[in-house]
Amino acid sequence: MDVQVERRRIEVDRQAVLATRISPPVRLPGILFVHGWGGSQRHDLVRAREIAALGCVCVTFDLRGHEHPPLDRDRVSREHNLRDLGVVHDWLCQDFRVDTEQIAVVGISYGGYLAALLTSLRPVRWLALRSPALYKDAGWNRPKQALHEDPDLMPFRHRRVSPAANRALAACARFRGDVLLVGAENDEIVPSPVMSNYQRAFSQARTLTTRLLTGADHALSDRRDQQAYTAILIRWLSEQILSRRSNSARRALARPDLS
Amino acid sequence: MDVQVERRRIEVDRQAVLATRISPPVRLPGILFVHGWGGSQRHDLVRAREIAALGCVCVTFDLRGHEHPPLDRDRVSREHNLRDLGVVHDWLCQDFRVDTEQIAVVGISYGGYLAALLTSLRPVRWLALRSPALYKDAGWNRPKQALHEDPDLMPFRHRRVSPAANRALAACARFRGDVLLVGAENDEIVPSPVMSNYQRAFSQARTLTTRLLTGADHALSDRRDQQAYTAILIRWLSEQILSRRSNSARRALARPDLS
Repeated sequence: MDVQVERRRIEVDRQAVLATRISPPVRLPGILFVHGWGGSQRHDLVRAREIAALGCVCVTFDLRGHEHPPLDRDRVSREHNLRDLGVVHDWLCQDFRVDTEQIAVVGISYGGYLAALLTSLRPVRWLALRSPALYKDAGWNRPKQALHEDPDLMPFRHRRVSPAANRALAACARFRGDVLLVGAENDEIVPSPVMSNYQRAFSQARTLTTRLLTGADHALSDRRDQQAYTAILIRWLSEQILSRRSNSARRALARPDLS
Repeated sequence: MDVQVERRRIEVDRQAVLATRISPPVRLPGILFVHGWGGSQRHDLVRAREIAALGCVCVTFDLRGHEHPPLDRDRVSREHNLRDLGVVHDWLCQDFRVDTEQIAVVGISYGGYLAALLTSLRPVRWLALRSPALYKDAGWNRPKQALHEDPDLMPFRHRRVSPAANRALAACARFRGDVLLVGAENDEIVPSPVMSNYQRAFSQARTLTTRLLTGADHALSDRRDQQAYTAILIRWLSEQILSRRSNSARRALARPDLS
């Protein structure tokens, strides 16, 4: 669904003026936000609001186990939450305004891990991961909480892991869209080797943009780090979405019948 | 037509996740470009393309007397061209996608003068004038070309003129929308007293943003001045349009039933 260009002669005083109308695409990008473990969609609303203003349909949601009050959080598995993400993605794509070839998924921490996995199950064009977590594949259906009982989880997050050895990284290695990867310099929960594993995995991405929030911790406890992340995300999405629309208008205006 | 916010329970595995969808307004801003005397809509197409990408319906057109080949240019009056502008404005507003409360008019030189006049005849929310020309009211129906035979035209452009004494400035004095006023430092056709007359006239504008292109001439002969003007215009329009949408989303999300 591209930018439309239309030429029209408009009558005035029994003469005519030649006018050109350039209209944005009828279908809009759809942006899906995935919060981190222990978070909620409330954390995504400010960013969703700003991005909706760019002319996108935005969806936030609460992962299972994160209702208010939270029910059964200690029984929720990655499989459960990945299914949550799938049905919400489907709901977004069912919106008649949404161009299903223009879906962005924006995930933080555990939500970034799920977002990476989703790319192997649903169409995703843009993937924005902030401090995406990494887990071993083993125990896929175990409660997510229980994964942290493994004394080797943090050592695992300091090791080099190849896409062949990890389901989330394998999804990244197959991903051919555009990627934003934002890390926090002093992140002890998702340390820099995890970021490197993700970065290496995106070898087939159309474009890769990495950013580092200097002095920030995993939760971006300092409000200024939150603002910096929001600014990075909005700038990147604007660039991706607006440049795509502008290119489509350039092509439309270059049509021989309009020159 | 404001940003829409919708809460929905989506079923998954016989449970439900709570999702929020934030959608941009259904109606889009409409942007009307008015070229200068001796120009053509071709000069506006790059800017129109960039602004359409922001999610606006853009219209450019050739003023009467500026067809290819130009017919009767020496017989065209301000009245003729203002009627041209009126019918093209109506065509833009008839587009079902366009929110008629969100119309911007962008005019250069003589086109800026016409754009100022249009605000007294049609709804205009945003007015962007680049080096708007100024003419005496007398001889309204004379050919526009003939106005330049008056030896007092350039002295007039160096005098202080009040809204009470000039139809275009009177329209500016009644205008209550947002204004961008861009001048060229070395403009000999629209010298700085004209810019000052316009600036003073906008005493009731909701907001006023003035910018000066340092070292530029009236035609912006240097390509870099063209680029600087385009950047100023796009930044201003983005700010106006996106901040309006973002505020509307903020209000929508603050509704008690969504908190």
